[in-house]
Amino acid sequence: MAKRIIVIGSGAAGMTAASAARKQSADAEITLFTEDEHIAYSPCAIPYVIEGKIPDFESIVMHTPQFYKEKRNIEVRTMTKVTSLDVDKKTLTTSDGQAHTFDSIVLATGGTVFMPPVEGVKLKGVLPVRSISDGKAIRSMMADTRSAVIAGAGVIGLEMALALKHAGKQVTVVEMFPQVIPRIMDKDMADLLQEHIASLGVEFVMSAPITAIKGKERVEAVVAGGKEYPCQMVIMATGVRANLELPNMIGLDVGALGAVRVSATLQPYRKGRLVKDVYLAGDVIQCESALAPGPTMSQLGSSAVRQGDVAGTNAAGGYATYPGVASAWVSHLGDVQAAGTGLSKGLAEYYGIRTVEGIGKGLTKARYYPGGKKIVVKVLADAATHRLIGAQIVSGEDATGRINWLTAAMLKGVSAEEFGNAFENAYCPPTSMVKDVVNVAVEDLLTKL
Amino acid sequence: MAKRIIVIGSGAAGMTAASAARKQSADAEITLFTEDEHIAYSPCAIPYVIEGKIPDFESIVMHTPQFYKEKRNIEVRTMTKVTSLDVDKKTLTTSDGQAHTFDSIVLATGGTVFMPPVEGVKLKGVLPVRSISDGKAIRSMMADTRSAVIAGAGVIGLEMALALKHAGKQVTVVEMFPQVIPRIMDKDMADLLQEHIASLGVEFVMSAPITAIKGKERVEAVVAGGKEYPCQMVIMATGVRANLELPNMIGLDVGALGAVRVSATLQPYRKGRLVKDVYLAGDVIQCESALAPGPTMSQLGSSAVRQGDVAGTNAAGGYATYPGVASAWVSHLGDVQAAGTGLSKGLAEYYGIRTVEGIGKGLTKARYYPGGKKIVVKVLADAATHRLIGAQIVSGEDATGRINWLTAAMLKGVSAEEFGNAFENAYCPPTSMVKDVVNVAVEDLLTKL
Repeated sequence: MAKRIIVIGSGAAGMTAASAARKQSADAEITLFTEDEHIAYSPCAIPYVIEGKIPDFESIVMHTPQFYKEKRNIEVRTMTKVTSLDVDKKTLTTSDGQAHTFDSIVLATGGTVFMPPVEGVKLKGVLPVRSISDGKAIRSMMADTRSAVIAGAGVIGLEMALALKHAGKQVTVVEMFPQVIPRIMDKDMADLLQEHIASLGVEFVMSAPITAIKGKERVEAVVAGGKEYPCQMVIMATGVRANLELPNMIGLDVGALGAVRVSATLQPYRKGRLVKDVYLAGDVIQCESALAPGPTMSQLGSSAVRQGDVAGTNAAGGYATYPGVASAWVSHLGDVQAAGTGLSKGLAEYYGIRTVEGIGKGLTKARYYPGGKKIVVKVLADAATHRLIGAQIVSGEDATGRINWLTAAMLKGVSAEEFGNAFENAYCPPTSMVKDVVNVAVEDLLTKL
Repeated sequence: MAKRIIVIGSGAAGMTAASAARKQSADAEITLFTEDEHIAYSPCAIPYVIEGKIPDFESIVMHTPQFYKEKRNIEVRTMTKVTSLDVDKKTLTTSDGQAHTFDSIVLATGGTVFMPPVEGVKLKGVLPVRSISDGKAIRSMMADTRSAVIAGAGVIGLEMALALKHAGKQVTVVEMFPQVIPRIMDKDMADLLQEHIASLGVEFVMSAPITAIKGKERVEAVVAGGKEYPCQMVIMATGVRANLELPNMIGLDVGALGAVRVSATLQPYRKGRLVKDVYLAGDVIQCESALAPGPTMSQLGSSAVRQGDVAGTNAAGGYATYPGVASAWVSHLGDVQAAGTGLSKGLAEYYGIRTVEGIGKGLTKARYYPGGKKIVVKVLADAATHRLIGAQIVSGEDATGRINWLTAAMLKGVSAEEFGNAFENAYCPPTSMVKDVVNVAVEDLLTKL
């Protein structure tokens, strides 16, 4: 009899899991439930629709439920909540009152934007950026918004700040930490980025946790660090927490970072014992770091796709494992790209690792070739083993390939010495310096060892 | 007493060797001899000066002899040929009649453009592209050139073809092999590139070795594949051969590829015995391949710099080794970038390796993000070990970081399976697809194993 597979969640993890299950098994019966109205879109694209770079939200939807039905024989039920779940009896019920059985299940329930518990957080105009519905709500309120406050200077916060600035709004970013992109970027690199974004007209209020949001019906001001910032819109870019409603319902173990703890096969644990026929993927899980012994959160679209692949393959009877992650990330912010991979200095300290760092500064093209953009590369090595464990880039262009290059070296445990000795760079005057700035950064690091 | 170090050659290898020797030893007496008038420039930049992208040849000269004297206490003697050399007695004489002694010596005598032994090769207007003097000769003859023939469709030949096309000339590329970039690129990828360059108005005559060059004083036509191609200029881009005059003078062993055989410390052999206090770097040597057991030529600026570093460090009493090379390369040709690393299918066959290949096609940005450029990535794995041993990219942008990324994996012996499982890519809609095309190519390869 054909295997019955249920997937819950329609983000990158869920959609990929369903497709991977189909690749693994031609005859499985695959059903996907999602509370969302839209499926198969990248939340990372929302700021660009707000900005107007992408014309509408329809453009970022890669596929419809019809596509999945017709091309992959996957049944997708939108706006359907799973109201009860029993993984021992292998049954669930949905908000439409129907009961379903399954042989295996993938939970890709994602995350929810953390709303700080302050006065006024439920006022009209206080909005997260997570779903297309959020994006549409933001867009519809923009007409009568003159000033916006972005709560949180992480990647999505900065992208939204620039999107709204570009749309002609006055924008203030309020951040509780003393730097932008806290946690995953070091302050020296973050400051370069902040300086650039400030030069485009975005205001920053740093080291200022939000203590209240004021207004009658709609938001009128944000209070942070003892001052009031008038605004008609607050974008909550305050981090994403794992959506634990279903995992809690079935008693799955939650790890140290507040997300579901999983095995390499992406199976959860219950009271320390592996749970059969249940797989998880995406923002709901914590993973293992590839750079330090310990758990990490990897809330990235690229990670969700890979996890979905593993979870779906296993759910359909195949065998795949998800390795430790470096969580390589990149963002395009104004005229620069910011990227990082592995551990920042702060994250390394969290894992008890002492670091040595190197900086490379230069251009993306040969010095004499017109149009070269400034690029700064920072690399971090473990002071004991000399292994490369982290890197960050702020560059006018071409950060993505460079950060993937460094990620590859880090995943293989390459030391600064080995990178310096053996890791070649391709060169031609229009695309790099004869010694790429990545190599320059590693050479600088080598002088500190 | 301070060590006396002599360096011969002022290309990337020689200049870097002199600087590395100074870094290693503050008090060494360092002298560099070169036949060239100009020093410290990248021959890779010459086509861009011809094209007009870079205003003049002075712009590509990174440093003057004065700079080396003042900043690094290195004596540079231009237009000075070494006329005799004895590495046992450690003496040499130069074209100005002076005799010099040394404790150690670096030979970075580079390569010479191979001029095919055909009729008319010495006619006026038949020019190599190697030195600034060559570049100036080409530029001065361009005024009365309407049509140019490029002999050889390698990287430098194609760059020159586009430079001359851009300058308004009628350009025909004549190549003895049936594809552009023979040897290091596979025909399917080379054809993509050729098609693009042809679309910019460059004519190609393939599988047509040049049999004669006609003309009275100045060139009037090239004969290839039985046809005559009228022209007023012929650019010889027919490959570079190691410059063996000095190595032969002192009896150094020449390897299977026609260049000096060296140890990992870049020391030469004489009748199979390592020669003390002599080091070589740059186009004059053959190296070991990082991907196959055997020698390879790595005639790249980026390799020359790394070899110069090793040779100079060792010549000054330090210890450094030069590892096997993947010879990652990149070129910007018209509106595309072409890049490669490791073994092509043809090179793999030369080493007796059977390959399996994967192709990824996509965009450099998310599908819905405006301005994404087409990118095609090809990866090759050893059919027995599944290790990645080669890759090629033709892309509208951002090829360099991607090829370095693949190079890193190949240098660490990563299999297609391991790359597919663990090698993450950073993602944001303006800089990549959620699964980068590099990963897509590896996934395609995995379906063939």
